[in-house]
Amino acid sequence: MKSEFKFHDVLRVRFADTDLQGIVFNGNYLTYYDNAWTEYFRAMGLTYGFLLESGVDTVLARTSIEFKSVARFDDLLEVYARISSMGRTSLIFDFEIYPKDEDRLISKAISVYVCVDPKTLGKIEVPEWLRGQISEFEEREFRN
Amino acid sequence: MKSEFKFHDVLRVRFADTDLQGIVFNGNYLTYYDNAWTEYFRAMGLTYGFLLESGVDTVLARTSIEFKSVARFDDLLEVYARISSMGRTSLIFDFEIYPKDEDRLISKAISVYVCVDPKTLGKIEVPEWLRGQISEFEEREFRN
Amino acid sequence: MKSEFKFHDVLRVRFADTDLQGIVFNGNYLTYYDNAWTEYFRAMGLTYGFLLESGVDTVLARTSIEFKSVARFDDLLEVYARISSMGRTSLIFDFEIYPKDEDRLISKAISVYVCVDPKTLGKIEVPEWLRGQISEFEEREFRN
Amino acid sequence: MKSEFKFHDVLRVRFADTDLQGIVFNGNYLTYYDNAWTEYFRAMGLTYGFLLESGVDTVLARTSIEFKSVARFDDLLEVYARISSMGRTSLIFDFEIYPKDEDRLISKAISVYVCVDPKTLGKIEVPEWLRGQISEFEEREFRN
Repeated sequence: MKSEFKFHDVLRVRFADTDLQGIVFNGNYLTYYDNAWTEYFRAMGLTYGFLLESGVDTVLARTSIEFKSVARFDDLLEVYARISSMGRTSLIFDFEIYPKDEDRLISKAISVYVCVDPKTLGKIEVPEWLRGQISEFEEREFRN
Repeated sequence: MKSEFKFHDVLRVRFADTDLQGIVFNGNYLTYYDNAWTEYFRAMGLTYGFLLESGVDTVLARTSIEFKSVARFDDLLEVYARISSMGRTSLIFDFEIYPKDEDRLISKAISVYVCVDPKTLGKIEVPEWLRGQISEFEEREFRN
Repeated sequence: MKSEFKFHDVLRVRFADTDLQGIVFNGNYLTYYDNAWTEYFRAMGLTYGFLLESGVDTVLARTSIEFKSVARFDDLLEVYARISSMGRTSLIFDFEIYPKDEDRLISKAISVYVCVDPKTLGKIEVPEWLRGQISEFEEREFRN
Repeated sequence: MKSEFKFHDVLRVRFADTDLQGIVFNGNYLTYYDNAWTEYFRAMGLTYGFLLESGVDTVLARTSIEFKSVARFDDLLEVYARISSMGRTSLIFDFEIYPKDEDRLISKAISVYVCVDPKTLGKIEVPEWLRGQISEFEEREFRN
């Protein structure tokens, strides 16, 4: 439900995102969710470049995606994103996609990102300062 | 586990499949699984073109993907695929990806495909003849 | 040169657009140019959907692309587009890409698009009304 | 003309390579040409990994592509590749794509690759040993 989210990004479906069925190819939803990750952190003042310099990157460990209705070329989509929980080393994102200004759910996903060292891609703990900024942005506490 | 599968396809990672982390971008695994879908049906004598002419296409309804280790440019990958169950209108695929001739699991997925009419993309039942051919290929019975 | 263009679009480089060299994969520039095609026509009031309904689509027949400097993830790019000449059945686009608010040329291209019937993809003449609207938008006459 | 080439690679069009026109999206031809680059060097015993370790990578500086006929999902394509000339720092590739066992030209391209240092992406000269191996493979001399 849109109301659960404090953040959403807007993107337009590219021609190259479609396939011969005339709809967005399913793999491209992971690109849309990935974009929303970036814009979510930008919205709290953390660019990807800044995160890397601070010694934090993430890799996707698990995702569950539902495809509820189709998106087509040139559609404007709203991609909602929020961090719904955190582990010691992981950030769990909830995502939902709707057509702009409509309530028809196109796709939703739950994705587990693991924090890694940008140089080695080895697992690291969620830094305290990041945990703090996310809590502030989401206006709630998170437990491990 | 590889031994659960009667089928696998081999593919080589394209340069364009990688991202700035130097590994295969997560969205491209859905492309790999999609390819395995095609090759799985080809292995039982059903090309995509034949399926369409027979009035059957599928759309991906849900997928859960785990990313266990990385794949890199130029890697040869084995993508294992099998239909593990069927609903009235759906085919459930299990997928696993390994480096060629290695036992290191790279990614696994469970994907629910819904059968649709190729022209309208509206939901249809799994045709009896297809149900039969899959049972024969997998050497087992399926219940709805 | 930017001053030759009446139109430009702004886009942000997606993570999935990059490759293991850490830069935008060359094939994705064709996606960027394709997007600029769409936005160029939208800027003159012609959405892709409207063009299709009016019986006009295009396919890319030829393109020459130069890659002058690199673009990276999260860069904001300005993609300049104009129709520089027209044939009986073709529209010739000039494109240039710069980082937002910079004069460093990243890539330029000349692309020949042939007008086709959206249903058959068979070649058709550039419709007179389209020729007129482009002339008006570009504030100049075009000869065949 | 196929007879001009000593090398070709075979690839199958992926579902994700198509677009809503039902044909291979134009940007994906650069992926196909890029793959042929890799396989061309592999055919002379030089994997991409070996090239990097030897201090040589390339970036695409310029390409001219013609799109002559369409390719569709599941088509088997033959991608012909040869180095047709060399500069001090550049390798010029000719590419042609045909459906497997057919003479209908789908696309052709001339692409200028500049040799670069894999670490800095700064321009370097074509190493003498590489120049020699290419001459041997193409069974001809090259002048700068």
